[in-house]
Amino acid sequence: MRPIQFLPVASAMLVSLAVAASAHGDEDAKPVSPIYGVSLPDGYRRWELIAPALEGEPLDELRAVVGNRIAMEAYRKGNLPFPDGTVLVKLAWKRTPSPEFEPAAVPGAATTVQVMVKNSRRYAATGGWGFGRFIDGRPVDEAQHRTCFACHEARVKGHDFVFTRLAS
Amino acid sequence: MRPIQFLPVASAMLVSLAVAASAHGDEDAKPVSPIYGVSLPDGYRRWELIAPALEGEPLDELRAVVGNRIAMEAYRKGNLPFPDGTVLVKLAWKRTPSPEFEPAAVPGAATTVQVMVKNSRRYAATGGWGFGRFIDGRPVDEAQHRTCFACHEARVKGHDFVFTRLAS
Repeated sequence: MRPIQFLPVASAMLVSLAVAASAHGDEDAKPVSPIYGVSLPDGYRRWELIAPALEGEPLDELRAVVGNRIAMEAYRKGNLPFPDGTVLVKLAWKRTPSPEFEPAAVPGAATTVQVMVKNSRRYAATGGWGFGRFIDGRPVDEAQHRTCFACHEARVKGHDFVFTRLAS
Repeated sequence: MRPIQFLPVASAMLVSLAVAASAHGDEDAKPVSPIYGVSLPDGYRRWELIAPALEGEPLDELRAVVGNRIAMEAYRKGNLPFPDGTVLVKLAWKRTPSPEFEPAAVPGAATTVQVMVKNSRRYAATGGWGFGRFIDGRPVDEAQHRTCFACHEARVKGHDFVFTRLAS
Protein backbone atom coordinates (compact mmCIF):
# COMPACT_ATOMS: atom_id res chain seq x y z
CA MET A 1 0.00 0.00 0.00
CA ARG A 2 2.81 2.43 0.70
CA PRO A 3 3.67 3.28 -2.92
CA ILE A 4 0.01 3.93 -3.70
CA GLN A 5 -0.30 6.27 -0.75
CA PHE A 6 2.94 7.99 -1.59
CA LEU A 7 1.98 9.07 -5.12
CA PRO A 8 -0.86 11.49 -4.27
CA VAL A 9 1.29 13.08 -1.60
CA ALA A 10 4.13 13.60 -4.05
CA SER A 11 1.74 14.93 -6.66
CA ALA A 12 0.25 17.38 -4.20
CA MET A 13 3.73 18.56 -3.27
CA LEU A 14 4.64 19.10 -6.92
CA VAL A 15 1.46 21.02 -7.54
CA SER A 16 2.19 23.20 -4.54
CA LEU A 17 5.70 23.86 -5.77
CA ALA A 18 4.46 24.72 -9.25
CA VAL A 19 1.85 27.11 -7.91
CA ALA A 20 4.43 28.71 -5.65
CA ALA A 21 6.84 29.14 -8.54
CA SER A 22 4.16 30.69 -10.68
CA ALA A 23 2.86 32.99 -7.97
CA HIS A 24 6.19 34.12 -6.65
CA GLY A 25 8.01 34.55 -9.94
CA ASP A 26 11.16 32.62 -9.20
CA GLU A 27 14.00 32.39 -11.72
CA ASP A 28 12.13 29.79 -13.79
CA ALA A 29 9.02 31.89 -14.24
CA LYS A 30 8.57 33.03 -17.83
CA PRO A 31 6.84 36.17 -19.01
CA VAL A 32 3.32 35.41 -20.20
CA SER A 33 1.00 37.25 -22.52
CA PRO A 34 -1.91 39.29 -21.15
CA ILE A 35 -5.38 37.77 -21.49
CA TYR A 36 -4.04 34.34 -22.48
CA GLY A 37 -1.10 33.62 -20.21
CA VAL A 38 0.92 32.21 -23.11
CA SER A 39 4.72 32.04 -22.78
CA LEU A 40 7.49 31.48 -25.31
CA PRO A 41 7.89 27.69 -25.52
CA ASP A 42 11.27 26.18 -24.75
CA GLY A 43 13.37 25.24 -27.75
CA TYR A 44 11.05 26.58 -30.43
CA ARG A 45 13.95 27.81 -32.57
CA ARG A 46 14.77 24.17 -33.29
CA TRP A 47 11.25 23.19 -34.29
CA GLU A 48 10.37 22.12 -37.79
CA LEU A 49 9.45 24.64 -40.44
CA ILE A 50 5.82 24.85 -41.50
CA ALA A 51 6.32 27.65 -44.01
CA PRO A 52 8.14 30.91 -44.67
CA ALA A 53 6.20 34.07 -45.50
CA LEU A 54 6.69 37.65 -46.51
CA GLU A 55 4.83 40.47 -44.81
CA GLY A 56 4.59 43.60 -46.94
CA GLU A 57 4.62 47.26 -46.02
CA PRO A 58 4.57 48.78 -43.51
CA LEU A 59 6.08 45.87 -41.56
CA ASP A 60 8.22 44.58 -44.41
CA GLU A 61 9.27 41.36 -42.73
CA LEU A 62 10.49 37.91 -43.59
CA ARG A 63 8.80 35.31 -41.45
CA ALA A 64 8.95 31.64 -40.69
CA VAL A 65 6.32 29.63 -38.86
CA VAL A 66 7.51 26.56 -36.97
CA GLY A 67 5.54 23.95 -35.05
CA ASN A 68 5.97 21.47 -32.24
CA ARG A 69 5.61 17.73 -32.90
CA ILE A 70 1.87 17.74 -32.32
CA ALA A 71 1.49 20.57 -34.82
CA MET A 72 3.63 18.87 -37.47
CA GLU A 73 1.79 15.59 -37.17
CA ALA A 74 -1.54 17.35 -37.59
CA TYR A 75 -0.26 19.29 -40.60
CA ARG A 76 1.15 16.20 -42.28
CA LYS A 77 -2.04 14.22 -41.72
CA GLY A 78 -4.22 17.16 -42.70
CA ASN A 79 -6.05 16.89 -39.38
CA LEU A 80 -8.33 19.77 -38.44
CA PRO A 81 -9.05 21.05 -35.90
CA PHE A 82 -5.52 20.99 -34.50
CA PRO A 83 -5.37 18.84 -31.35
CA ASP A 84 -4.82 20.24 -27.88
CA GLY A 85 -1.11 20.66 -27.30
CA THR A 86 -0.48 22.13 -30.73
CA VAL A 87 1.92 25.06 -30.53
CA LEU A 88 2.77 27.30 -33.47
CA VAL A 89 5.47 29.97 -33.39
CA LYS A 90 5.99 32.65 -35.98
CA LEU A 91 9.43 34.24 -36.08
CA ALA A 92 9.81 37.56 -37.87
CA TRP A 93 12.73 39.67 -39.06
CA LYS A 94 13.00 42.91 -40.98
CA ARG A 95 13.43 42.25 -44.69
CA THR A 96 16.95 43.36 -45.58
CA PRO A 97 18.63 43.41 -48.99
CA SER A 98 21.32 40.76 -49.25
CA PRO A 99 24.69 42.52 -49.38
CA GLU A 100 26.03 39.61 -51.43
CA PHE A 101 23.32 38.89 -53.98
CA GLU A 102 21.31 41.82 -55.24
CA PRO A 103 18.06 40.05 -56.18
CA ALA A 104 17.67 38.53 -52.73
CA ALA A 105 16.40 39.73 -49.37
CA VAL A 106 17.41 38.12 -46.11
CA PRO A 107 16.50 38.38 -42.43
CA GLY A 108 17.68 41.52 -40.67
CA ALA A 109 16.87 42.43 -37.08
CA ALA A 110 14.41 40.17 -35.29
CA THR A 111 11.09 41.87 -34.60
CA THR A 112 8.27 39.87 -33.03
CA VAL A 113 7.82 36.25 -32.04
CA GLN A 114 4.18 35.19 -32.05
CA VAL A 115 2.77 32.09 -30.43
CA MET A 116 -0.50 30.17 -30.74
CA VAL A 117 -1.30 27.44 -28.22
CA LYS A 118 -4.24 25.08 -28.64
CA ASN A 119 -6.17 24.26 -25.49
CA SER A 120 -9.81 23.81 -26.34
CA ARG A 121 -11.03 24.13 -22.76
CA ARG A 122 -8.83 26.91 -21.46
CA TYR A 123 -9.32 29.01 -24.60
CA ALA A 124 -12.86 27.96 -25.46
CA ALA A 125 -13.89 31.59 -25.97
CA THR A 126 -11.28 32.14 -28.68
CA GLY A 127 -11.64 29.09 -30.86
CA GLY A 128 -9.47 26.99 -28.57
CA TRP A 129 -6.41 29.16 -29.15
CA GLY A 130 -4.32 31.24 -26.79
CA PHE A 131 -2.14 33.95 -28.30
CA GLY A 132 1.12 35.58 -27.32
CA ARG A 133 3.10 38.28 -29.10
CA PHE A 134 6.61 38.92 -27.84
CA ILE A 135 9.32 41.46 -28.53
CA ASP A 136 12.76 40.72 -27.11
CA GLY A 137 11.20 37.96 -25.05
CA ARG A 138 8.63 40.22 -23.42
CA PRO A 139 4.91 40.16 -24.20
CA VAL A 140 3.37 43.23 -25.81
CA ASP A 141 0.42 44.98 -24.18
CA GLU A 142 -3.14 43.82 -23.69
CA ALA A 143 -4.53 46.10 -26.39
CA GLN A 144 -2.42 44.34 -29.03
CA HIS A 145 -3.46 40.94 -27.73
CA ARG A 146 -7.11 41.93 -28.06
CA THR A 147 -6.63 42.11 -31.83
CA CYS A 148 -5.34 38.55 -32.38
CA PHE A 149 -8.46 36.47 -32.31
CA ALA A 150 -10.74 38.93 -34.09
CA CYS A 151 -8.48 38.87 -37.14
CA HIS A 152 -7.97 35.10 -37.11
CA GLU A 153 -11.70 34.56 -36.65
CA ALA A 154 -12.62 36.90 -39.48
CA ARG A 155 -10.15 35.46 -41.98
CA VAL A 156 -9.31 31.83 -41.28
CA LYS A 157 -12.08 30.34 -39.18
CA GLY A 158 -12.39 27.58 -41.80
CA HIS A 159 -8.78 26.52 -41.20
CA ASP A 160 -9.15 26.27 -37.43
CA PHE A 161 -8.18 29.96 -37.11
CA VAL A 162 -4.68 29.32 -38.47
CA PHE A 163 -3.32 31.22 -41.47
CA THR A 164 -0.24 29.14 -42.21
CA ARG A 165 -0.35 26.07 -44.42
CA LEU A 166 2.41 23.46 -44.66
CA ALA A 167 4.77 24.35 -47.50
CA SER A 168 5.63 21.12 -49.25
CA MET B 1 38.23 -12.97 -30.12
CA ARG B 2 35.20 -13.90 -32.14
CA PRO B 3 33.34 -10.59 -31.84
CA ILE B 4 36.48 -8.71 -32.88
CA GLN B 5 36.90 -10.88 -35.92
CA PHE B 6 33.26 -10.66 -36.81
CA LEU B 7 33.12 -6.89 -37.09
CA PRO B 8 35.49 -6.37 -40.04
CA VAL B 9 33.77 -9.16 -41.95
CA ALA B 10 30.37 -7.57 -41.40
CA SER B 11 31.74 -4.16 -42.34
CA ALA B 12 33.22 -5.54 -45.54
CA MET B 13 29.91 -7.15 -46.41
CA LEU B 14 28.05 -3.90 -45.84
CA VAL B 15 30.51 -1.99 -47.99
CA SER B 16 30.08 -4.57 -50.75
CA LEU B 17 26.32 -4.27 -50.56
CA ALA B 18 26.48 -0.48 -50.65
CA VAL B 19 28.76 -0.51 -53.67
CA ALA B 20 26.53 -3.02 -55.43
CA ALA B 21 23.45 -0.92 -54.74
CA SER B 22 25.16 2.16 -56.05
CA ALA B 23 26.58 0.50 -59.15
CA HIS B 24 23.50 -1.43 -60.14
CA GLY B 25 20.87 1.18 -59.43
CA ASP B 26 18.46 -0.88 -57.36
CA GLU B 27 15.26 0.56 -55.96
CA ASP B 28 17.15 2.49 -53.28
CA ALA B 29 19.35 4.34 -55.76
CA LYS B 30 18.64 8.06 -55.75
CA PRO B 31 19.10 10.50 -58.60
CA VAL B 32 22.36 12.42 -58.24
CA SER B 33 23.52 15.72 -59.63
CA PRO B 34 25.92 15.87 -62.58
CA ILE B 35 29.54 16.77 -61.79
CA TYR B 36 29.07 16.35 -58.03
CA GLY B 37 27.01 13.21 -57.53
CA VAL B 38 24.93 14.90 -54.82
CA SER B 39 21.50 13.44 -53.97
CA LEU B 40 18.56 14.82 -52.02
CA PRO B 41 19.23 13.84 -48.40
CA ASP B 42 16.67 11.74 -46.56
CA GLY B 43 14.37 13.63 -44.24
CA TYR B 44 15.58 17.13 -45.04
CA ARG B 45 12.07 18.58 -44.85
CA ARG B 46 12.21 17.99 -41.09
CA TRP B 47 15.57 19.66 -40.59
CA GLU B 48 15.99 22.84 -38.58
CA LEU B 49 15.56 26.21 -40.18
CA ILE B 50 18.67 28.30 -40.77
CA ALA B 51 16.86 31.22 -42.38
CA PRO B 52 14.09 32.21 -44.75
CA ALA B 53 14.81 34.40 -47.77
CA LEU B 54 13.11 36.17 -50.61
CA GLU B 55 14.40 35.93 -54.17
CA GLY B 56 13.25 38.81 -56.35
CA GLU B 57 12.37 38.96 -60.03
CA PRO B 58 12.49 37.10 -62.27
CA LEU B 59 12.33 34.07 -59.96
CA ASP B 60 10.11 35.72 -57.35
CA GLU B 61 10.42 32.98 -54.77
CA LEU B 62 10.09 32.47 -51.06
CA ARG B 63 12.86 30.28 -49.75
CA ALA B 64 13.96 28.51 -46.63
CA VAL B 65 17.37 27.05 -45.95
CA VAL B 66 17.55 24.13 -43.53
CA GLY B 67 20.54 22.22 -42.22
CA ASN B 68 21.44 18.84 -40.80
CA ARG B 69 22.72 18.51 -37.23
CA ILE B 70 26.33 19.07 -38.21
CA ALA B 71 25.35 22.24 -40.03
CA MET B 72 23.30 23.59 -37.14
CA GLU B 73 26.03 22.94 -34.60
CA ALA B 74 28.53 24.78 -36.77
CA TYR B 75 26.16 27.69 -37.26
CA ARG B 76 25.39 27.99 -33.55
CA LYS B 77 29.06 27.86 -32.59
CA GLY B 78 30.03 30.18 -35.42
CA ASN B 79 32.53 27.60 -36.67
CA LEU B 80 34.01 28.19 -40.13
CA PRO B 81 34.81 26.42 -42.32
CA PHE B 82 31.84 24.10 -41.99
CA PRO B 83 32.98 20.58 -41.07
CA ASP B 84 32.77 17.62 -43.42
CA GLY B 85 29.32 16.13 -43.23
CA THR B 86 27.57 19.49 -43.27
CA VAL B 87 24.53 19.42 -45.53
CA LEU B 88 22.48 22.50 -46.40
CA VAL B 89 19.21 22.37 -48.30
CA LYS B 90 17.40 25.35 -49.79
CA LEU B 91 13.71 24.88 -50.47
CA ALA B 92 12.01 27.32 -52.83
CA TRP B 93 8.43 28.14 -53.75
CA LYS B 94 6.85 30.71 -56.01
CA ARG B 95 5.86 33.81 -54.05
CA THR B 96 2.07 33.91 -54.02
CA PRO B 97 -0.23 36.56 -52.55
CA SER B 98 -2.02 35.29 -49.47
CA PRO B 99 -5.71 34.91 -50.34
CA GLU B 100 -6.54 35.60 -46.69
CA PHE B 101 -4.34 38.52 -45.73
CA GLU B 102 -3.56 41.05 -48.41
CA PRO B 103 -0.22 42.39 -47.16
CA ALA B 104 1.30 38.91 -47.01
CA ALA B 105 2.84 36.54 -49.53
CA VAL B 106 3.05 32.82 -48.94
CA PRO B 107 4.59 29.77 -50.64
CA GLY B 108 2.94 28.69 -53.87
CA ALA B 109 4.18 25.88 -56.10
CA ALA B 110 7.51 24.33 -55.15
CA THR B 111 10.25 25.14 -57.63
CA THR B 112 13.80 23.97 -56.92
CA VAL B 113 15.47 22.18 -54.04
CA GLN B 114 19.17 22.95 -53.84
CA VAL B 115 21.72 21.03 -51.82
CA MET B 116 25.26 21.73 -50.65
CA VAL B 117 27.32 18.90 -49.17
CA LYS B 118 30.67 19.49 -47.48
CA ASN B 119 33.36 16.94 -48.19
CA SER B 120 36.71 18.65 -48.26
CA ARG B 121 38.50 15.80 -50.02
CA ARG B 122 35.92 14.74 -52.57
CA TYR B 123 35.12 18.33 -53.52
CA ALA B 124 38.55 19.86 -53.01
CA ALA B 125 38.36 21.62 -56.39
CA THR B 126 35.18 23.51 -55.40
CA GLY B 127 35.96 24.79 -51.93
CA GLY B 128 35.02 21.48 -50.35
CA TRP B 129 31.40 21.71 -51.49
CA GLY B 130 29.34 19.52 -53.77
CA PHE B 131 26.22 21.01 -55.28
CA GLY B 132 22.89 19.62 -56.42
CA ARG B 133 19.91 21.42 -57.90
CA PHE B 134 16.69 19.42 -58.18
CA ILE B 135 13.28 19.97 -59.70
CA ASP B 136 10.57 17.47 -58.77
CA GLY B 137 13.27 15.27 -57.29
CA ARG B 138 15.35 15.15 -60.46
CA PRO B 139 18.67 16.94 -60.92
CA VAL B 140 18.88 19.70 -63.49
CA ASP B 141 21.46 19.53 -66.26
CA GLU B 142 25.23 19.79 -66.12
CA ALA B 143 25.30 23.30 -67.57
CA GLN B 144 23.29 24.62 -64.62
CA HIS B 145 25.52 22.80 -62.18
CA ARG B 146 28.57 24.43 -63.72
CA THR B 147 27.30 27.81 -62.52
CA CYS B 148 27.01 26.94 -58.80
CA PHE B 149 30.54 27.21 -57.56
CA ALA B 150 31.59 30.18 -59.69
CA CYS B 151 28.87 32.31 -58.11
CA HIS B 152 29.48 31.11 -54.57
CA GLU B 153 33.23 31.61 -55.00
CA ALA B 154 32.83 35.12 -56.38
CA ARG B 155 30.41 36.28 -53.70
CA VAL B 156 30.81 34.40 -50.42
CA LYS B 157 34.27 32.87 -50.35
CA GLY B 158 34.83 34.59 -46.99
CA HIS B 159 31.90 32.70 -45.46
CA ASP B 160 33.10 29.29 -46.61
CA PHE B 161 31.18 29.72 -49.89
CA VAL B 162 27.81 29.79 -48.10
CA PHE B 163 25.37 32.68 -48.53
CA THR B 164 22.94 31.89 -45.73
CA ARG B 165 23.48 33.09 -42.17
CA LEU B 166 21.61 31.81 -39.13
CA ALA B 167 18.54 33.97 -38.49
CA SER B 168 18.31 34.43 -34.74
